[in-house]
Amino acid sequence: MSDRTYAILGTGALGGFYGAKLQQAGLDVHLLLHSDYEYVSKHGLVIESVDGNFTLPQVKTYREVQKMPPCHVVVIALKTTQNHLLPDLLPPVVKDDGVVLVLQNGLGVEEEVAQIVGSERVIGGLSFLTANKVAPGHIRHLSYKNIILGEYTHDYHPGGITNRMQQIGEDFKSAGIPIELSEDLLLARWQKLVWNIPYNGLSVILNATTAELMADVHTRKLVEQLMYEVVAGAKSCTRIIPDSFVQTMLNNTANMKPYRTSMKIDYDARRPLEVETIFGNPLRMAQAAGANLPYINCLYQQLKFLDAKNF
Amino acid sequence: MSDRTYAILGTGALGGFYGAKLQQAGLDVHLLLHSDYEYVSKHGLVIESVDGNFTLPQVKTYREVQKMPPCHVVVIALKTTQNHLLPDLLPPVVKDDGVVLVLQNGLGVEEEVAQIVGSERVIGGLSFLTANKVAPGHIRHLSYKNIILGEYTHDYHPGGITNRMQQIGEDFKSAGIPIELSEDLLLARWQKLVWNIPYNGLSVILNATTAELMADVHTRKLVEQLMYEVVAGAKSCTRIIPDSFVQTMLNNTANMKPYRTSMKIDYDARRPLEVETIFGNPLRMAQAAGANLPYINCLYQQLKFLDAKNF
Repeated sequence: MSDRTYAILGTGALGGFYGAKLQQAGLDVHLLLHSDYEYVSKHGLVIESVDGNFTLPQVKTYREVQKMPPCHVVVIALKTTQNHLLPDLLPPVVKDDGVVLVLQNGLGVEEEVAQIVGSERVIGGLSFLTANKVAPGHIRHLSYKNIILGEYTHDYHPGGITNRMQQIGEDFKSAGIPIELSEDLLLARWQKLVWNIPYNGLSVILNATTAELMADVHTRKLVEQLMYEVVAGAKSCTRIIPDSFVQTMLNNTANMKPYRTSMKIDYDARRPLEVETIFGNPLRMAQAAGANLPYINCLYQQLKFLDAKNF
Repeated sequence: MSDRTYAILGTGALGGFYGAKLQQAGLDVHLLLHSDYEYVSKHGLVIESVDGNFTLPQVKTYREVQKMPPCHVVVIALKTTQNHLLPDLLPPVVKDDGVVLVLQNGLGVEEEVAQIVGSERVIGGLSFLTANKVAPGHIRHLSYKNIILGEYTHDYHPGGITNRMQQIGEDFKSAGIPIELSEDLLLARWQKLVWNIPYNGLSVILNATTAELMADVHTRKLVEQLMYEVVAGAKSCTRIIPDSFVQTMLNNTANMKPYRTSMKIDYDARRPLEVETIFGNPLRMAQAAGANLPYINCLYQQLKFLDAKNF
């Protein structure tokens, strides 16, 4: 059993699910909560999952990072719209030889985190979890749960597979989470954007499920054009995503059950949208490399308008 | 007084307003109606206008073109979404030496009409009318009313100012309608699209007034990018629209009262949208000339989706 300690910053669907799985596997897990602090402190966590339900009547909860022990691994499980809090949240809770695992959507967050804790203490993570928080401390896990890990390096040059990645990977595997170790975090992030940009964006703008977007010949074409622009953006950063990847994403999504994207769920709940990390940062990174991505830019500006109007 | 006879196909806000003005000026006007036929036949037309209200208790109404006399000038005042009816509507009602005035939005409609009546019998018209039909036969005219006329020629080469344009122009002027005669119909149509494409499209997609679109820094930028793409589309057809035209459109709209576009009004009333003539035809014309217009294409595909879902 690993003696690594985990701090989970944000106990929504993602933080709650992975935190509970790690604790269930015997790891020492410390949860930061905000609105659900009282409830979860008293009642613990309930995980309803396709893999089997379980409850953790007792979990270590905190309302302030100052009261948390410095941990080996600090998982950022907040929405990126909360990232203005990170300069206050991170320093007290990261052990000197600890790492911060940025388990968030989009692009460019590792750079922000590196400015706070130093780039040698940052690992990126991509989560493919489908889960919702249905009540305080009550998480419903629907299908996927896998994670890709990748080392962050200054300027995002490929960081290879490191020991600490393997160690963290082992912890998650022991908790039943499929883990893939990527030598190239930036490539993995662009690959995830191939799906996230078209479906998250259009689902909000057009009030549509993935199934509706795929059933209409015009939006299906638009999804494909957006995907190829993400591929062009990746290429401007010297990351090559093959056409077959785009076709696989299209086919998989066409065969999925109708799905309400996470950005649509946020929009319907009138929560702020992760527009900057999913759209703004990739656009700016590609633009700095000389690539113009008009379809993505069109969605970005539409989403900024809708996000501002949604309060 | 001119002895030219006018047939008005479609007696909504546009056909009703111009038809009433022409009849009031003493011209012989014949109105084709559909749903309002019974009411208008009995009660005539009521025009409530910033220029002064007036009523026409008796107007010449028809439910079928077969009963209309062949006229010197046939004004197409239908929405372009009804243009599949034109092959049946036009032939009986155009005099041998008559002309069809295509008083519709967008691009490419004259070509369709030319295939029905011959290109020598087509004139294009752009209306800048702000008016609504508030009840059967009751039209409320709010501000603008001017018309631009231009000769249609095969391949849209500039047709110059012809006698018949001047004659029709005189009729409208005698009815108090400001008329501009354009030597180049295609240029005039592209110029109108500079406004119509961004505001009509985004107002539907983002559920917004012109004022909201101009107040937000992101949509204001997107409007401008769309306008410059229309300029690029025009250029691909060898029509030059200066940058100052774009800036004037932006400034004028920013200084306008909040305005619900005609496409938004149609969308809210669950009527079909003029997507093909305002977006599809310009896109295809530019594409045939080798120009790629991604922002406009993005809006086109979004609007096709929303239009199909709106029934």
